[in-house]
This record gives sequence, structure tokens and C-alpha cells, in this order.
Amino acid sequence: MAENLDFLFYPKSVAVIGASNVPGKVGNAIMRSITLRYDGKVYPVNVKGGEIEVNGKKFPVYRSVKEIPDEVEVAVIAVPARFVPDVIDECGEKGVKAAVVISAGFKEAGRADLEEELVKRAKKWGIRVVGPNCLGVTNLENGFDCNFNPPERQARPPFGKVAFMSQSGAFGAAILDWAARERIGMSKFISLGNMADLDESDFMRYLGDDPKTGVITGYIEGVKDGRKFFNTAKEVTLKKPIIVLKSGRTEAGAKAAASHTGSLAGAYKIYQAAFEQTGVLEAKSMRQLFNYAKALAMQSPAKGNRVAIVTNGGGAGVMMSDGLLERGMKLAELSDETNEKFRKSIEEGKLPEHMSYKNPIDIIGDAPSSRYEVAMRYALEDPNVDLLVVIALFQSPALDEGIVEAMERMKAYGKPIVFVAPGGDYPHKMARNIEMKGVPVYETVEDGVDAVYALVKYGEWLRENGRL
Amino acid sequence: MAENLDFLFYPKSVAVIGASNVPGKVGNAIMRSITLRYDGKVYPVNVKGGEIEVNGKKFPVYRSVKEIPDEVEVAVIAVPARFVPDVIDECGEKGVKAAVVISAGFKEAGRADLEEELVKRAKKWGIRVVGPNCLGVTNLENGFDCNFNPPERQARPPFGKVAFMSQSGAFGAAILDWAARERIGMSKFISLGNMADLDESDFMRYLGDDPKTGVITGYIEGVKDGRKFFNTAKEVTLKKPIIVLKSGRTEAGAKAAASHTGSLAGAYKIYQAAFEQTGVLEAKSMRQLFNYAKALAMQSPAKGNRVAIVTNGGGAGVMMSDGLLERGMKLAELSDETNEKFRKSIEEGKLPEHMSYKNPIDIIGDAPSSRYEVAMRYALEDPNVDLLVVIALFQSPALDEGIVEAMERMKAYGKPIVFVAPGGDYPHKMARNIEMKGVPVYETVEDGVDAVYALVKYGEWLRENGRL
Repeated sequence: MAENLDFLFYPKSVAVIGASNVPGKVGNAIMRSITLRYDGKVYPVNVKGGEIEVNGKKFPVYRSVKEIPDEVEVAVIAVPARFVPDVIDECGEKGVKAAVVISAGFKEAGRADLEEELVKRAKKWGIRVVGPNCLGVTNLENGFDCNFNPPERQARPPFGKVAFMSQSGAFGAAILDWAARERIGMSKFISLGNMADLDESDFMRYLGDDPKTGVITGYIEGVKDGRKFFNTAKEVTLKKPIIVLKSGRTEAGAKAAASHTGSLAGAYKIYQAAFEQTGVLEAKSMRQLFNYAKALAMQSPAKGNRVAIVTNGGGAGVMMSDGLLERGMKLAELSDETNEKFRKSIEEGKLPEHMSYKNPIDIIGDAPSSRYEVAMRYALEDPNVDLLVVIALFQSPALDEGIVEAMERMKAYGKPIVFVAPGGDYPHKMARNIEMKGVPVYETVEDGVDAVYALVKYGEWLRENGRL
Repeated sequence: MAENLDFLFYPKSVAVIGASNVPGKVGNAIMRSITLRYDGKVYPVNVKGGEIEVNGKKFPVYRSVKEIPDEVEVAVIAVPARFVPDVIDECGEKGVKAAVVISAGFKEAGRADLEEELVKRAKKWGIRVVGPNCLGVTNLENGFDCNFNPPERQARPPFGKVAFMSQSGAFGAAILDWAARERIGMSKFISLGNMADLDESDFMRYLGDDPKTGVITGYIEGVKDGRKFFNTAKEVTLKKPIIVLKSGRTEAGAKAAASHTGSLAGAYKIYQAAFEQTGVLEAKSMRQLFNYAKALAMQSPAKGNRVAIVTNGGGAGVMMSDGLLERGMKLAELSDETNEKFRKSIEEGKLPEHMSYKNPIDIIGDAPSSRYEVAMRYALEDPNVDLLVVIALFQSPALDEGIVEAMERMKAYGKPIVFVAPGGDYPHKMARNIEMKGVPVYETVEDGVDAVYALVKYGEWLRENGRL
């Protein structure tokens, strides 16, 4: 049931049913979010009628969706649960294509009957449903944003390539807020809620075809339909990476999940096997999920697992070696030709006497960017190197800002690069500049290890399937 | 050889040998660092003589340490390696107690002979040596700071309870810079360098007795004297926690370590057994090291491994449950009495109908701080609970700032508390306020799991040894 859900993310007109003029109410907060950047038409609906003013704009309030003197593609519904089925009927009469049901009080509150009724009515009219009991969808590209958390509490990330879907609304909100601070660009966010109709697999398929999404990520407690998930994931991962943070891995976690989303978290081993067989990357934590996602959004997958490390700090090189080996990667054995290049450059005084080029290539503490460039080129030119890790301890004043442009020049080699810059404010500033050149930068060695792992692992999957 | 090294961290007067007037030179950078906050006497020494101006202050330059018309407790030495042994002799004649040898070009550069000579001379005069080939020591309390990295590249953390020593200078610098940004308070920093004389065990012992240090942390590639480390650690961990990040764990890492510090990284399993037997907490990454350190610096160790979780987001509760179980902790089984309290409060409308108090205690998305307070009290009053984890998704506008004062009030129960607040700018702001009340706050669930682990694990060690 492949379906293009563009009407849900790029609607020309939207009705907000349960819109309110009272600050603090969900129906007011949604109006605030949805009218901030989105330039489609927004029609508030409330049985009380009247007028709503948000973001400096005034909107007449319709008493029913049927009164709206225009087509309505999407209805965002935030009325008490018991009214939702009838609202769905009205939407059906109006020709609405999709309903984003924010309202809670369904299955999660012991009212499975109400949820079944909702689905039955929606099916009758051919309306696709997001939720209920969710934060809705947010399209970071056009600003279509149903999320009722106010921007002063939950920032929105910049537009970018990472899509995120979440079975937990609250955690999804935290992720958006966090991504905004970390400047991780997102394409679309989906709060899945109870998944009465549209589920994680439907969105996975849609995002797989979405040209604005480069990487699909998700938080799940349990999938709704195992077979559907398996088949969809297997197909989509050949086009773009899918990264999943699966919780409910332990007995206690599974119990908690059951009382949270009602998900049958199931035997974790079965999930692991399914991820393995479908090429889904499993992240064990939120940070790891985004370490993976950033790497795959910014770099091409690696053609092998042989990694070269260039560093101005020996200790960080040791830690990186440990991290890579512990995760199944290898330190590249540099070719004789490369060794010869280093030997010669040291002889000629272009590189310092006491450096080590045994990989980790330790260009020592007083390395300027020009020394980095020589070492990076030698490593990238080596056919034994599939991926380059660059570690820069910017605390050394010898390291000049020329490193930013140098990274730009390294792109020509076409090999994936991961940059690690531990420390405080100055490295953070440099990180942003380097990321503008398309190279992902990580704050710690262990985050960088995650990044390498994702690029190597996804590359393996593509190779196994003849796609790389 | 227990020795009080206070003279090294609290000198009344210091000579900087190799001081320079030329910006960018190491001997100039050290003068800048050392005269910024430290209010002891600083005497620059350089054979060229003259005058040095740094931080708006003028200093006459002495041609030799012997010319200084005052006692000198510590000499910071930054002259070319070949001159160092003779400089040590001059320091000996002058009565200097400790030499911090910044200069490189010793064992790490194939000149073990020069290093032996340095030690021989120092021994003769009874001078204790830090380094050579290091960033020296930094006392965050009095500003005595030999570190030559300029503040615009490497910030200094605020004064606090965590001491850090590092076998890697560059990584140590990155850690300082990072701690400054993360506002982790530090007592003393030691860059160990080649450890020609004073080694990790000497400093461990000193820091164990240092009243300003609450937690001892360190980055090591290999210990200098296994027996000494074992005996010292075993004694010190009964007084305060020691956290070690050991690198060179894998074959590739060990090789890299050998070419970096010359450390015989040794079989990692032996290190692991030693850490286990001496109560040293091993961190696997930089972030984990500081997650452990912050928890132990701010909270008392747990009396058991039974954890209660109070959360306003179900998903985060599930993830926390997984994380705790995977690391050997348990979810506390709340007592009948506690269950009864929750049941009653729900009946009375003080707590919401659809919340779950099965632990994780999910007080749901619209929880204000008053609801947190009720749930936290019930959890902390329960004799089955050893430690409380509070998860707050501040993206929900329902959660008011009263949570800060509520955390203050929870201290009365005397049980350790770990706070998790994922997200962006607003949660970060709240985190700082809550930490001012003495409760450590973590950015992600997995960081919070680290914190709990440290408090439980160190508590176990103390209990096993009859100290808790």
C-alpha cells in the first residue's frame, strides 16, 4: 500500500478543529505553531465561532469544518475524544484527505472502542489518520507545524535531510528541541501517537520516496505490523539509511512500554534479527541515533572498514583506535607508497621528525593546518584507506583556521571523512564552520566512532545488496 | 612514600625558567597563564635578561634562578631539553622544592638518557619533578596555572571538586576546555607527561588527602608501577572515588599508546581486574568519565541498586528502564504503602487518573512541578527506593519553574537524586538552576544512566568495605 502522503505534509489548506483564542490551550498553541511560517490557508474551527488572533494575524472562526468556503486538505483535530468520530464524519463530507488527531483519551486511556469508531468512520470516507494522542506532523521545509509545544519551550530545528518519527510525543519534542540546539537539519517530524491508521511503516515508505529526506530515523517501542515493517524496511534501506532507537529492550523496559504505548515490545532478539536482515541501523541511545544520522546525512557510505586517523594529539588517536577496533572496524595498513611519501616529507622537513605515520598518523601538538593537509592527502590517496578520521585538538594555538578550507579541498578524493574536535567554545565555533563545508564534526572521540560505524555499516549493507 | 604535594599546588613563589617576551612562544604563554589569577610571586628567568610585560604587569627578568632575591618554591621549566639538567642543578642550589618541566625532547623523542640525567640531578637535590613533556599543573582554586594554551583557545573550568590527571597533555587540554563549557567544577589538573619522577599514583595519593578534591579522575594509557597503583588506589577509594579512562584497550590501541607515551599498555584484562579489585570506576569514554564524576561530586553514593523513576514522558521512562537494567541496576518495587498513597491521591484528584505508578512513575505530559513534588516524595519515602531518577521534558509548557525549589526540598530525604532534562536551550537553563541546588542534571537518558551507575557502583564498593 505505497502511498504518497505529500497531501499530509504540503497541504494547500488546513482546518484546525478545536482552535481556541485562550492562550495556554492546545487549540490556541496549534494555531500559533501552524500560522508562524506555513503559507497555506489556515481555517480555525470551533463551535463557539468568533475570531482568533495569533502571531499578529486575525482569523474568523468557523462553527464547523463544513462552513469553510474553500477546499480543506488536512484537518488538525484537538477536540475532546468523544467528539472526534463525529468531527471525522464532517471532515468526510467536506472532502478532507487527512486528519491529524492530536486529542488524547482513546486506546491509551482504556477507550479502544472510541479509537475503533474513529478508524471506522475515517475508512468510510477514505480519510488517512495520524494519531490519535500525538503531537502531529511538522514539515520543517514549509513550516507546516501542528506541534502544540510553544517555541519558547521547544525550538524547531533548521530544515535539513534527517526525518524523525517517534512513538513518544514527549520524547519527540525533546529531540526536536535538542536538534535545534545542535543545528541538525531535519526534513519532517512525525509524532506517531496510537497509530490507529498510519503507522511507522507507512511513513517509512513515504519518507523513502521523499526527495527532501536523506536519512530516516525513528524512536519505536514496538512495531504495529512486523511483516509490513520487515518488507518496507528491506526495500527502503536500499534507497536511504534507516536508523531506529528501539526501547523496551529489557523486561522492565518492555513492561514500561506496555503501560506507555500499549506496544507489545516483544522479544528484543527478534527485533535485532529483523534490523540485521533489513539493513536497519539500530542506535542504543539518542546521541548515537543522531551521531549516525549526521554522518549519513553529510557523507557517502564507506566502501570498506579500513580507517586512517590523522591527529594532533596522541592520546585521542589511541582512544579512537580503541573505539574503532571495539566496534569492528580496522586501522588501515598504509601502503608502502604512502609510507615512502611520509618518510620523504620528513626528510625534506615538510613534516616533523618526531611524528608517527604508523596510523594513527600523529602530526603532533604544534601542527598547523598545512601539516594536516599534507597528512590528510597522503591518507586519502592511499588505496588501503576507505575512510578518514581527522582529530583536531583546537586548544593548541598552532592550529590555524586554514583547516576549514583544507577540509573543503579534501572532498575531491570522494572518500568519507569524519572530524572530531573535542573541547569548548572555540572548537564548537570551528565545528560549525567545518560542517558548512559538508564534513560532520563530533565533540568526542566516542561520538566520532559512532559516525564511522554508521558509514561503514551502511556501506556494507549497500555492497551486500549490490548497490555500492 | 606518602607525600603532601601542597608546595607544588600552593607555592608562595615561582620561577618561570625560559620565560619570554615574544607572544606565541611557550615561555611567554606560561607567563600569561601564571600571572592571570595566581597571587603568589612570579619571577621570570631567561639568560637574555631584560623585562617582560604580560597581563598589563611588568616583570624584571633574572638571568638565572640563582639571581632571584627571594625564596623559590617551584620552578616551571621551558628551556630546550639539553639545558634542563643544568637548570635543575641551579634550582637545587637555590633550594627549589619542585620542578614542573614543560620542555619536550626527552624519552618520547628517543632521549631516555637525557631524562635519566634529569632525574639523577633532581634526586640529588631532593627536587620533585612533574613531567617532562607536559602541560604542567593547574590549581583552579588559586589560579596557579602553568598551562601554555592561551585562554582564547582553551578555557579554564570553574573551581570545584573534580581533580583530573592526564597522561596526554593535548587530551587533558581538551578536557579542561570542555569542562569549562559544561561548567564542571575542577579542583586540580595535572598533565603527567613522561612521569620521570612523580607518577599517577603519587598524585592519586596526594589528591586522596586533598580536602578540596572530592572525586579523582584520570586518563591513562598505562600505569608506571602496577603494584604501587594497586595499593594506592585500594586505599584512596575508601576515602573518595577514583574514575579512570584507560585507553590502549585493543591491540591497535595498545600499539598506538606505545608510540605515543611509550606506555606498555599491557593486557587490558589485567587492568580491568585491578580496577575491579581496587574499587576504581572505569569509564569507557570522556563523556562517561564526566557523567560519573559529576554525579559523585554532587551526590552521596547509593545504599543499594533499587531505582525509582519519576517522569512526565512515558518513552523516556522506558528508555531509562532499559538503560538501568542493562547496567545491572533494578527498578524499585514500590511498597504497598506507597502504592496506597498513589491510589489515594488519584482518588482525591491530587494526581491524574491516567498516570501510572508502577515505576517508572509516569505523571504524564501535563504535569506541573507540584505533581512532581508529590510523586518524588512518595518515591523517596519508600524504603524500597535507594535512588531517585527524575526525568523532566521541559518542552511541555505545563512544567513550571517551581521544580527548581522542589528539588531543593527533596534533599531532606538524604537519598541520591539524578535529574535528566533532554532538549535544547530552555532545559539547559533549567539544568543550571537545578544544579545550583546540588542536584546533577544530564542531557540524555544514557548520561543519566551513567550517573546512576556511578552512584550505585561506588556505594557497593564502600559497603563491601564497611564504609557505608
